[in-house]
Amino acid sequence: MSLLQFSNQLPKVSSLGPELVLVYDKVLDRKVPGFRRWRQSFSASYGVEAGEDLKAVEKFPGHISKVVSLCDSFSSRQLKLVVVGGGSVGDFGGFVASVLKRGVGLIHIPSTWLAAIDSAHGGKTALNVGKAKNQIGTFYPAEKVILIKSLLLAQSSARAFEGFSELLKVALLSGGRFWQQLRIEKKISNEVLWRHLPQAIEGKLKIVKKDPRETKGLRHQLNLGHTMGHVFESYYELPHGIAVNYGMEFALRWSAQKKLMNASTAQSLEESPVMTYLLSAERDHLLNSNAGVLRAWRKLLLRDKKKSSAQKLRFIFLIAPGKPVVKDVFVDEVLLELCRQQEEELYA
Amino acid sequence: MSLLQFSNQLPKVSSLGPELVLVYDKVLDRKVPGFRRWRQSFSASYGVEAGEDLKAVEKFPGHISKVVSLCDSFSSRQLKLVVVGGGSVGDFGGFVASVLKRGVGLIHIPSTWLAAIDSAHGGKTALNVGKAKNQIGTFYPAEKVILIKSLLLAQSSARAFEGFSELLKVALLSGGRFWQQLRIEKKISNEVLWRHLPQAIEGKLKIVKKDPRETKGLRHQLNLGHTMGHVFESYYELPHGIAVNYGMEFALRWSAQKKLMNASTAQSLEESPVMTYLLSAERDHLLNSNAGVLRAWRKLLLRDKKKSSAQKLRFIFLIAPGKPVVKDVFVDEVLLELCRQQEEELYA
Repeated sequence: MSLLQFSNQLPKVSSLGPELVLVYDKVLDRKVPGFRRWRQSFSASYGVEAGEDLKAVEKFPGHISKVVSLCDSFSSRQLKLVVVGGGSVGDFGGFVASVLKRGVGLIHIPSTWLAAIDSAHGGKTALNVGKAKNQIGTFYPAEKVILIKSLLLAQSSARAFEGFSELLKVALLSGGRFWQQLRIEKKISNEVLWRHLPQAIEGKLKIVKKDPRETKGLRHQLNLGHTMGHVFESYYELPHGIAVNYGMEFALRWSAQKKLMNASTAQSLEESPVMTYLLSAERDHLLNSNAGVLRAWRKLLLRDKKKSSAQKLRFIFLIAPGKPVVKDVFVDEVLLELCRQQEEELYA
Repeated sequence: MSLLQFSNQLPKVSSLGPELVLVYDKVLDRKVPGFRRWRQSFSASYGVEAGEDLKAVEKFPGHISKVVSLCDSFSSRQLKLVVVGGGSVGDFGGFVASVLKRGVGLIHIPSTWLAAIDSAHGGKTALNVGKAKNQIGTFYPAEKVILIKSLLLAQSSARAFEGFSELLKVALLSGGRFWQQLRIEKKISNEVLWRHLPQAIEGKLKIVKKDPRETKGLRHQLNLGHTMGHVFESYYELPHGIAVNYGMEFALRWSAQKKLMNASTAQSLEESPVMTYLLSAERDHLLNSNAGVLRAWRKLLLRDKKKSSAQKLRFIFLIAPGKPVVKDVFVDEVLLELCRQQEEELYA
């Protein structure tokens, strides 16, 4: 497991190690006061543009040959990659660290909520192949993840809403005190996210520790909201957090429909201050039962890495906060439920 | 560690698993009787052309997108890659297995001596970046390595000479009974290699087990002959086995020159029937003290993954069979010794 470190400011570069290559999101130069000066104190650095395109395997050869030449004068034993950015930069940088010279040191400094709450922890790295997300990757936990308040609070408040989906997900999976504390929040802001961050990371790592390589089916829980979330994300090119919010709503409604979640739990969930905020924040008109769209979604679902067999996939339902349940469902059941929810929506 | 299985014939495909993708060297269709029929019984297969070009990271996106689409109808949990080929096919296929869906099952069926003796064991996978070999890769041991007599004996006898370098290397590192049995061989043939194969694999795995991820410096021993071997291989585009034979001769002569190996050991080594065979089989005129060549070699040496610091690398010397010693040397010391050996050669 990675070492966690919470800090107000960017760390001294010399404190991170003797031979460092920095991989960073170029946007931070403009967005974060003092960032440019900080990153210029690395002797080797590689600026990237964040986004799914960075994770395109087609671009990987170009990136890796530049990184390899940056490392030319370093010994590979002491070499460490310091990766500063959001989810895509972390997935990319983590993958690079895991394969460069068969694995070098890795420090994550997440600059977005999605990364700080979720993707920087647990060791998953990934690249996309064509239009299919995360088809290749490794399990490669960072030595250290450094959470920096000034960096995370430099984000616009819109980002807080996107990052919130992963926070909510872990709270729903964890239940208990974390959920009780989060459910009464009325407003999502950067400050609120920073406050709940340690609990969210702890909640995620608790699940990861039980199943670090996703071989026992336990880690699948963390996919709550992600099965349809990834479909929306790919198909509508939505930000991950927004897509997962919709995917989570889909999962919760399906859990209630299947009577896995009883009516009173469903109601108390719906009435939680934080959920009202979430569900009213944006209305989705994403459900679509057009035959062509369903065919496309079917294809995207079939690419889901959580497939349990050729036509089935693992779907995460919620019985109640703290009680997720993983069930094998046919891809076509997901599509039927989509149609049902759309009708419910239309005639609501 | 991988399960080892020795067998006379290619295994029943159904015995390997329920969801298989075969990655195979296309040349085997022509070279091995019955191979084509065997490989056609896989429901998904991907034929490749062996060689360093297969390991070029620039070609990786094209390969991986084809493999991903071959897996479309499979569940990733049961998916296994069966990789049949020599060193380059194994390095490539092993890397693909290690990153596909963050790692799927892997069975190696080596078809060359180099792979059967060395590269299929110990879990190293690799791709090349530009002209630099094995710059990226993973540690990903196969679940199972199947050694098949009919497949390995289908190789021409020239291949036995190439494969012999890794056998000799492990015998020199292991010493003891293995070295005693190998040193008296007067002729290298496919049959001789098959006979010594189990001991060679055992000898290699003994070293790998002590240091599976090459973090303790112990696994470096296996690099005996490879520091200059890789330079000769890159610079002269020689087959790996031939290049390593030259590299090993360089290492043994340097060991004697440095008095790490005493004169009587050096003499007894030189007089071993197997060494006479080896050293007389081809004469090297590869040593070259031209300034431009030395500059190029310097650059190649500096790319060596066994660098211990910016200007030093780990070199494996031999005190006696069974007694390797790893020492940090300056890159320039290697170049000076090259010049010395060339002069010795010239005035011999």
